[in-house]
Amino acid sequence: MQHFTKEAIDELASRYKNNLINSISGYKSANLIGTKSNAGSCNLAIFNSVVHLGSNPALLGFILRPTTVPRHSYQNMKESGVFTINHIAKNQIEAAHHTSAKYPEGISEFEQSGLIEEYKNDFFAPFVKLAPVQIACSYVNDYLIEENNTLLVVGAIEHLYVKDDMLVEDGWVQLDKGEIVTINGLDGYALPSLLERFPYARPK
Amino acid sequence: MQHFTKEAIDELASRYKNNLINSISGYKSANLIGTKSNAGSCNLAIFNSVVHLGSNPALLGFILRPTTVPRHSYQNMKESGVFTINHIAKNQIEAAHHTSAKYPEGISEFEQSGLIEEYKNDFFAPFVKLAPVQIACSYVNDYLIEENNTLLVVGAIEHLYVKDDMLVEDGWVQLDKGEIVTINGLDGYALPSLLERFPYARPK
Repeated sequence: MQHFTKEAIDELASRYKNNLINSISGYKSANLIGTKSNAGSCNLAIFNSVVHLGSNPALLGFILRPTTVPRHSYQNMKESGVFTINHIAKNQIEAAHHTSAKYPEGISEFEQSGLIEEYKNDFFAPFVKLAPVQIACSYVNDYLIEENNTLLVVGAIEHLYVKDDMLVEDGWVQLDKGEIVTINGLDGYALPSLLERFPYARPK
Repeated sequence: MQHFTKEAIDELASRYKNNLINSISGYKSANLIGTKSNAGSCNLAIFNSVVHLGSNPALLGFILRPTTVPRHSYQNMKESGVFTINHIAKNQIEAAHHTSAKYPEGISEFEQSGLIEEYKNDFFAPFVKLAPVQIACSYVNDYLIEENNTLLVVGAIEHLYVKDDMLVEDGWVQLDKGEIVTINGLDGYALPSLLERFPYARPK
Protein backbone atom coordinates (compact mmCIF):
# COMPACT_ATOMS: atom_id res chain seq x y z
CA MET A 1 0.00 0.00 0.00
CA GLN A 2 0.99 3.62 -0.49
CA HIS A 3 1.61 5.32 2.86
CA PHE A 4 1.37 9.04 3.55
CA THR A 5 2.10 10.54 6.96
CA LYS A 6 0.47 13.76 8.14
CA GLU A 7 3.75 15.57 7.46
CA ALA A 8 3.99 14.14 3.94
CA ILE A 9 0.39 15.18 3.23
CA ASP A 10 1.02 18.72 4.50
CA GLU A 11 3.92 19.07 2.05
CA LEU A 12 2.11 17.81 -1.05
CA ALA A 13 1.46 20.23 -3.92
CA SER A 14 -1.94 21.82 -3.50
CA ARG A 15 -3.72 20.16 -6.46
CA TYR A 16 -2.38 16.68 -5.61
CA LYS A 17 -3.38 17.15 -1.98
CA ASN A 18 -6.90 18.32 -2.89
CA ASN A 19 -7.42 15.30 -5.13
CA LEU A 20 -6.07 12.88 -2.53
CA ILE A 21 -7.89 14.15 0.54
CA ASN A 22 -11.14 14.73 -1.32
CA SER A 23 -11.22 11.15 -2.55
CA ILE A 24 -10.18 9.27 0.58
CA SER A 25 -13.35 9.80 2.61
CA GLY A 26 -15.14 7.37 0.26
CA TYR A 27 -18.08 7.84 -2.06
CA LYS A 28 -20.08 11.04 -1.60
CA SER A 29 -23.66 12.05 -2.22
CA ALA A 30 -24.24 13.95 -5.48
CA ASN A 31 -26.70 16.80 -5.10
CA LEU A 32 -27.61 20.10 -6.66
CA ILE A 33 -28.73 22.77 -4.21
CA GLY A 34 -31.17 25.31 -5.64
CA THR A 35 -31.79 28.73 -4.10
CA LYS A 36 -33.35 32.07 -5.05
CA SER A 37 -32.61 35.52 -3.65
CA ASN A 38 -35.50 37.68 -2.51
CA ALA A 39 -34.79 39.84 -5.57
CA GLY A 40 -35.51 36.78 -7.71
CA SER A 41 -32.11 35.67 -8.94
CA CYS A 42 -31.55 31.90 -8.91
CA ASN A 43 -28.49 29.91 -7.97
CA LEU A 44 -27.70 26.24 -8.47
CA ALA A 45 -24.59 24.62 -7.02
CA ILE A 46 -23.24 21.09 -6.81
CA PHE A 47 -22.58 19.64 -3.34
CA ASN A 48 -21.02 16.32 -2.36
CA SER A 49 -21.38 16.61 1.42
CA VAL A 50 -25.10 16.23 2.12
CA VAL A 51 -25.46 14.00 5.15
CA HIS A 52 -28.36 12.50 7.11
CA LEU A 53 -28.69 14.09 10.56
CA GLY A 54 -31.90 12.49 11.79
CA SER A 55 -35.28 11.12 10.77
CA ASN A 56 -37.45 12.41 13.61
CA PRO A 57 -37.55 15.31 12.87
CA ALA A 58 -36.24 14.83 9.32
CA LEU A 59 -33.00 16.83 9.17
CA LEU A 60 -30.16 16.98 6.65
CA GLY A 61 -26.82 18.75 6.83
CA PHE A 62 -24.10 19.79 4.43
CA ILE A 63 -20.68 21.40 4.62
CA LEU A 64 -19.98 24.83 3.18
CA ARG A 65 -16.46 25.98 2.51
CA PRO A 66 -15.13 29.16 4.15
CA THR A 67 -17.23 32.24 3.55
CA THR A 68 -14.21 34.34 2.61
CA VAL A 69 -15.37 34.18 -1.02
CA PRO A 70 -18.98 34.94 -1.99
CA ARG A 71 -21.27 31.95 -1.51
CA HIS A 72 -24.46 32.77 -3.36
CA SER A 73 -26.24 29.63 -2.25
CA TYR A 74 -25.62 30.44 1.39
CA GLN A 75 -26.64 34.09 1.03
CA ASN A 76 -29.86 33.09 -0.72
CA MET A 77 -30.87 30.44 1.79
CA LYS A 78 -30.21 32.72 4.75
CA GLU A 79 -32.19 35.51 3.08
CA SER A 80 -35.15 33.46 1.84
CA GLY A 81 -35.11 30.76 4.53
CA VAL A 82 -35.39 27.91 2.01
CA PHE A 83 -33.47 25.78 -0.48
CA THR A 84 -33.90 22.58 -2.48
CA ILE A 85 -31.74 19.45 -2.70
CA ASN A 86 -31.95 17.56 -5.99
CA HIS A 87 -30.29 14.24 -6.76
CA ILE A 88 -28.03 13.97 -9.79
CA ALA A 89 -28.92 11.20 -12.22
CA LYS A 90 -26.58 9.74 -14.84
CA ASN A 91 -28.09 11.79 -17.68
CA GLN A 92 -27.42 15.10 -15.88
CA ILE A 93 -23.83 14.68 -14.66
CA GLU A 94 -22.19 16.91 -17.24
CA ALA A 95 -24.64 19.76 -16.65
CA ALA A 96 -24.42 19.26 -12.88
CA HIS A 97 -20.63 19.42 -12.92
CA HIS A 98 -20.77 22.65 -14.92
CA THR A 99 -22.60 24.40 -12.05
CA SER A 100 -19.25 24.39 -10.20
CA ALA A 101 -17.87 26.99 -12.63
CA LYS A 102 -17.53 30.38 -10.92
CA TYR A 103 -20.17 32.68 -12.38
CA PRO A 104 -20.67 36.20 -10.99
CA GLU A 105 -23.72 37.04 -8.87
CA GLY A 106 -26.88 37.47 -10.93
CA ILE A 107 -25.93 34.81 -13.51
CA SER A 108 -28.09 31.69 -13.07
CA GLU A 109 -26.30 28.35 -13.21
CA PHE A 110 -29.59 26.91 -14.43
CA GLU A 111 -29.29 28.86 -17.68
CA GLN A 112 -25.56 28.25 -18.03
CA SER A 113 -25.78 24.50 -17.43
CA GLY A 114 -28.97 23.82 -19.37
CA LEU A 115 -30.76 22.43 -16.32
CA ILE A 116 -34.36 23.59 -15.98
CA GLU A 117 -35.99 25.29 -12.98
CA GLU A 118 -39.14 23.71 -11.69
CA TYR A 119 -41.57 25.18 -9.14
CA LYS A 120 -44.19 23.26 -7.24
CA ASN A 121 -46.48 23.57 -4.23
CA ASP A 122 -45.73 27.31 -4.03
CA PHE A 123 -42.23 26.56 -2.70
CA PHE A 124 -40.03 29.64 -3.22
CA ALA A 125 -36.75 27.92 -4.17
CA PRO A 126 -36.33 26.23 -7.56
CA PHE A 127 -36.10 22.45 -8.00
CA VAL A 128 -34.14 20.81 -10.80
CA LYS A 129 -36.60 19.45 -13.34
CA LEU A 130 -36.31 15.69 -13.97
CA ALA A 131 -34.19 15.06 -10.85
CA PRO A 132 -35.46 11.66 -9.57
CA VAL A 133 -35.44 12.88 -5.93
CA GLN A 134 -36.28 16.49 -5.03
CA ILE A 135 -36.28 17.77 -1.46
CA ALA A 136 -37.63 21.13 -0.28
CA CYS A 137 -35.85 22.29 2.88
CA SER A 138 -36.10 25.16 5.28
CA TYR A 139 -32.84 26.61 6.58
CA VAL A 140 -32.62 25.84 10.30
CA ASN A 141 -29.17 26.70 11.61
CA ASP A 142 -25.46 26.54 10.93
CA TYR A 143 -22.44 25.60 13.00
CA LEU A 144 -18.98 27.07 12.49
CA ILE A 145 -16.30 24.39 12.47
CA GLU A 146 -13.49 26.36 14.05
CA GLU A 147 -10.69 24.09 12.90
CA ASN A 148 -10.97 25.32 9.29
CA ASN A 149 -13.83 27.86 9.21
CA THR A 150 -16.20 25.60 7.31
CA LEU A 151 -19.90 25.59 8.18
CA LEU A 152 -22.25 22.70 8.83
CA VAL A 153 -25.63 23.93 7.56
CA VAL A 154 -28.73 22.22 9.00
CA GLY A 155 -31.94 22.00 6.96
CA ALA A 156 -35.37 20.54 7.76
CA ILE A 157 -37.33 18.62 5.14
CA GLU A 158 -40.57 20.40 4.17
CA HIS A 159 -41.50 18.40 1.04
CA LEU A 160 -40.11 15.28 -0.50
CA TYR A 161 -40.66 14.06 -4.06
CA VAL A 162 -39.47 10.64 -5.16
CA LYS A 163 -39.81 9.01 -8.59
CA ASP A 164 -42.55 6.37 -8.26
CA ASP A 165 -40.58 3.23 -9.06
CA MET A 166 -37.75 4.06 -6.61
CA LEU A 167 -39.97 3.85 -3.51
CA VAL A 168 -40.14 0.37 -1.99
CA GLU A 169 -43.03 -0.69 0.24
CA ASP A 170 -41.14 -0.34 3.54
CA GLY A 171 -40.16 3.26 2.79
CA TRP A 172 -36.68 2.49 1.47
CA VAL A 173 -35.74 4.40 -1.68
CA GLN A 174 -33.74 2.29 -4.13
CA LEU A 175 -31.37 4.85 -5.58
CA ASP A 176 -30.06 2.77 -8.50
CA LYS A 177 -33.57 2.56 -9.97
CA GLY A 178 -33.27 6.31 -10.57
CA GLU A 179 -29.71 5.99 -11.93
CA ILE A 180 -28.56 8.30 -9.13
CA VAL A 181 -24.79 8.82 -9.20
CA THR A 182 -22.19 9.16 -6.47
CA ILE A 183 -19.09 11.38 -6.45
CA ASN A 184 -15.50 10.13 -6.19
CA GLY A 185 -13.30 13.03 -5.08
CA LEU A 186 -13.94 16.40 -6.70
CA ASP A 187 -14.61 15.42 -10.28
CA GLY A 188 -15.33 11.68 -10.66
CA TYR A 189 -18.91 10.49 -11.18
CA ALA A 190 -19.74 6.83 -10.61
CA LEU A 191 -22.94 4.82 -11.06
CA PRO A 192 -23.75 2.29 -8.33
CA SER A 193 -25.67 -0.97 -8.67
CA LEU A 194 -27.29 -2.55 -5.64
CA LEU A 195 -25.45 -5.63 -4.37
CA GLU A 196 -27.53 -6.55 -1.36
CA ARG A 197 -29.92 -5.29 1.26
CA PHE A 198 -29.31 -6.89 4.65
CA PRO A 199 -31.75 -7.46 7.52
CA TYR A 200 -31.29 -5.62 10.82
CA ALA A 201 -28.12 -7.02 12.44
CA ARG A 202 -28.50 -8.89 15.73
CA PRO A 203 -25.79 -10.39 17.97
CA LYS A 204 -24.89 -13.98 17.04
CA MET B 1 -43.65 11.31 -8.35
CA GLN B 2 -44.57 10.35 -4.80
CA HIS B 3 -45.01 13.45 -2.63
CA PHE B 4 -44.60 13.63 1.15
CA THR B 5 -45.18 16.82 3.11
CA LYS B 6 -43.40 17.49 6.41
CA GLU B 7 -46.65 16.67 8.24
CA ALA B 8 -47.07 13.39 6.34
CA ILE B 9 -43.46 12.43 7.13
CA ASP B 10 -43.92 13.21 10.83
CA GLU B 11 -46.89 10.83 10.95
CA LEU B 12 -45.24 7.87 9.22
CA ALA B 13 -44.64 4.69 11.20
CA SER B 14 -41.16 4.77 12.70
CA ARG B 15 -39.58 2.01 10.59
CA TYR B 16 -40.98 3.38 7.32
CA LYS B 17 -39.81 6.88 8.23
CA ASN B 18 -36.31 5.68 9.13
CA ASN B 19 -35.97 3.87 5.81
CA LEU B 20 -37.31 6.82 3.82
CA ILE B 21 -35.34 9.62 5.43
CA ASN B 22 -32.13 7.58 5.63
CA SER B 23 -32.22 6.86 1.91
CA ILE B 24 -33.21 10.24 0.51
CA SER B 25 -29.94 12.07 1.21
CA GLY B 26 -28.31 10.03 -1.59
CA TYR B 27 -25.46 7.56 -1.55
CA LYS B 28 -23.33 7.51 1.59
CA SER B 29 -19.75 6.63 2.37
CA ALA B 30 -19.24 3.12 3.78
CA ASN B 31 -16.66 3.03 6.56
CA LEU B 32 -15.69 1.00 9.59
CA ILE B 33 -14.39 3.02 12.52
CA GLY B 34 -11.92 1.18 14.73
CA THR B 35 -11.13 2.21 18.31
CA LYS B 36 -9.50 0.77 21.42
CA SER B 37 -10.08 1.71 25.06
CA ASN B 38 -7.07 2.46 27.24
CA ALA B 39 -7.83 -0.85 29.00
CA GLY B 40 -7.29 -2.59 25.65
CA SER B 41 -10.76 -3.54 24.50
CA CYS B 42 -11.44 -2.99 20.80
CA ASN B 43 -14.53 -1.69 19.08
CA LEU B 44 -15.47 -1.64 15.41
CA ALA B 45 -18.57 0.12 14.11
CA ILE B 46 -20.03 0.87 10.71
CA PHE B 47 -20.61 4.51 9.76
CA ASN B 48 -22.25 6.00 6.69
CA SER B 49 -21.74 9.68 7.47
CA VAL B 50 -18.00 10.31 7.03
CA VAL B 51 -17.60 13.61 5.22
CA HIS B 52 -14.68 15.66 3.90
CA LEU B 53 -14.16 18.84 5.93
CA GLY B 54 -10.96 20.16 4.40
CA SER B 55 -7.67 19.24 2.75
CA ASN B 56 -5.36 21.79 4.32
CA PRO B 57 -5.19 20.65 7.08
CA ALA B 58 -6.63 17.25 6.19
CA LEU B 59 -9.80 16.94 8.28
CA LEU B 60 -12.73 14.52 8.19
CA GLY B 61 -16.00 14.56 10.11
CA PHE B 62 -18.78 12.14 10.91
CA ILE B 63 -22.15 12.23 12.66
CA LEU B 64 -22.79 10.36 15.89
CA ARG B 65 -26.30 9.65 17.08
CA PRO B 66 -27.45 10.88 20.49
CA THR B 67 -25.28 9.77 23.38
CA THR B 68 -28.28 8.68 25.44
CA VAL B 69 -27.26 5.05 24.75
CA PRO B 70 -23.66 3.88 25.24
CA ARG B 71 -21.47 4.70 22.26
CA HIS B 72 -18.33 2.64 22.69
CA SER B 73 -16.59 4.11 19.65
CA TYR B 74 -17.05 7.63 20.97
CA GLN B 75 -15.92 6.74 24.49
CA ASN B 76 -12.80 5.04 23.15
CA MET B 77 -11.78 7.85 20.82
CA LYS B 78 -12.25 10.49 23.52
CA GLU B 79 -10.24 8.39 25.98
CA SER B 80 -7.40 7.34 23.65
CA GLY B 81 -7.43 10.37 21.36
CA VAL B 82 -7.33 8.25 18.19
CA PHE B 83 -9.41 6.14 15.81
CA THR B 84 -9.17 4.59 12.36
CA ILE B 85 -11.44 4.88 9.32
CA ASN B 86 -11.43 1.86 7.00
CA HIS B 87 -13.23 1.61 3.67
CA ILE B 88 -15.60 -1.28 3.08
CA ALA B 89 -14.91 -3.34 -0.04
CA LYS B 90 -17.39 -5.64 -1.75
CA ASN B 91 -15.93 -8.77 -0.16
CA GLN B 92 -16.41 -7.43 3.38
CA ILE B 93 -19.98 -6.05 3.27
CA GLU B 94 -21.63 -8.87 5.19
CA ALA B 95 -19.07 -8.75 7.99
CA ALA B 96 -19.16 -4.95 8.02
CA HIS B 97 -22.94 -4.88 8.34
CA HIS B 98 -22.78 -7.31 11.26
CA THR B 99 -20.78 -4.76 13.30
CA SER B 100 -24.05 -2.81 13.68
CA ALA B 101 -25.43 -5.54 15.99
CA LYS B 102 -25.61 -4.30 19.58
CA TYR B 103 -22.94 -6.14 21.56
CA PRO B 104 -22.27 -5.26 25.19
CA GLU B 105 -19.12 -3.39 26.21
CA GLY B 106 -16.03 -5.60 26.22
CA ILE B 107 -17.15 -7.74 23.28
CA SER B 108 -15.07 -6.96 20.18
CA GLU B 109 -16.99 -6.58 16.92
CA PHE B 110 -13.78 -7.70 15.20
CA GLU B 111 -14.15 -11.16 16.69
CA GLN B 112 -17.92 -11.30 16.18
CA SER B 113 -17.80 -10.21 12.55
CA GLY B 114 -14.70 -12.14 11.49
CA LEU B 115 -12.85 -8.98 10.45
CA ILE B 116 -9.21 -8.92 11.50
CA GLU B 117 -7.40 -6.25 13.53
CA GLU B 118 -4.24 -4.85 12.02
CA TYR B 119 -1.69 -2.61 13.72
CA LYS B 120 0.96 -0.53 11.98
CA ASN B 121 3.36 2.32 12.60
CA ASP B 122 2.73 2.04 16.35
CA PHE B 123 -0.72 3.55 15.94
CA PHE B 124 -2.84 2.70 19.01
CA ALA B 125 -6.21 2.09 17.29
CA PRO B 126 -6.83 -1.03 15.18
CA PHE B 127 -7.17 -0.93 11.39
CA VAL B 128 -9.31 -3.41 9.47
CA LYS B 129 -7.00 -5.84 7.69
CA LEU B 130 -7.43 -5.91 3.88
CA ALA B 131 -9.45 -2.66 3.77
CA PRO B 132 -8.26 -0.97 0.53
CA VAL B 133 -8.09 2.45 2.22
CA GLN B 134 -7.09 2.83 5.88
CA ILE B 135 -6.93 6.19 7.63
CA ALA B 136 -5.42 6.84 11.06
CA CYS B 137 -7.03 9.86 12.72
CA SER B 138 -6.60 11.85 15.88
CA TYR B 139 -9.74 13.04 17.62
CA VAL B 140 -9.85 16.85 17.37
CA ASN B 141 -13.21 18.14 18.53
CA ASP B 142 -16.93 17.62 18.43
CA TYR B 143 -19.91 19.90 17.91
CA LEU B 144 -23.33 19.31 19.41
CA ILE B 145 -26.11 19.75 16.87
CA GLU B 146 -28.79 21.14 19.14
CA GLU B 147 -31.71 20.39 16.83
CA ASN B 148 -31.52 16.64 17.56
CA ASN B 149 -28.58 16.11 19.95
CA THR B 150 -26.36 14.47 17.36
CA LEU B 151 -22.63 15.20 17.33
CA LEU B 152 -20.35 16.16 14.46
CA VAL B 153 -16.99 14.62 15.38
CA VAL B 154 -13.90 16.17 13.76
CA GLY B 155 -10.78 14.08 13.14
CA ALA B 156 -7.37 14.96 11.68
CA ILE B 157 -5.59 12.55 9.33
CA GLU B 158 -2.34 11.24 10.83
CA HIS B 159 -1.59 8.39 8.41
CA LEU B 160 -3.14 7.35 5.15
CA TYR B 161 -2.77 3.97 3.44
CA VAL B 162 -4.11 3.38 -0.06
CA LYS B 163 -3.95 0.20 -2.14
CA ASP B 164 -1.31 0.80 -4.81
CA ASP B 165 -3.41 0.51 -7.96
CA MET B 166 -6.10 2.90 -6.69
CA LEU B 167 -3.79 5.93 -6.56
CA VAL B 168 -3.68 7.91 -9.81
CA GLU B 169 -0.73 10.18 -10.67
CA ASP B 170 -2.48 13.46 -9.79
CA GLY B 171 -3.37 12.25 -6.30
CA TRP B 172 -6.91 11.16 -7.11
CA VAL B 173 -7.91 7.81 -5.59
CA GLN B 174 -10.07 5.73 -7.95
CA LEU B 175 -12.43 4.04 -5.52
CA ASP B 176 -13.90 1.48 -7.92
CA LYS B 177 -10.46 -0.07 -8.45
CA GLY B 178 -10.65 -1.19 -4.81
CA GLU B 179 -14.28 -2.35 -5.18
CA ILE B 180 -15.26 0.14 -2.48
CA VAL B 181 -19.00 0.12 -1.82
CA THR B 182 -21.49 2.86 -1.00
CA ILE B 183 -24.51 2.69 1.30
CA ASN B 184 -28.12 3.24 0.24
CA GLY B 185 -30.17 4.00 3.35
CA LEU B 186 -29.48 1.93 6.45
CA ASP B 187 -28.97 -1.51 4.97
CA GLY B 188 -28.41 -1.40 1.19
CA TYR B 189 -24.90 -1.88 -0.21
CA ALA B 190 -24.17 -0.83 -3.79
CA LEU B 191 -21.05 -1.12 -5.96
CA PRO B 192 -20.23 1.91 -8.12
CA SER B 193 -18.43 1.96 -11.46
CA LEU B 194 -16.74 5.12 -12.69
CA LEU B 195 -18.64 6.86 -15.50
CA GLU B 196 -16.48 9.89 -16.09
CA ARG B 197 -13.96 12.23 -14.58
CA PHE B 198 -14.48 15.83 -15.67
CA PRO B 199 -11.94 18.67 -15.93
CA TYR B 200 -12.21 21.70 -13.65
CA ALA B 201 -15.36 23.60 -14.68
CA ARG B 202 -14.93 27.11 -16.08
CA PRO B 203 -17.58 29.63 -17.18
CA LYS B 204 -18.63 29.25 -20.84
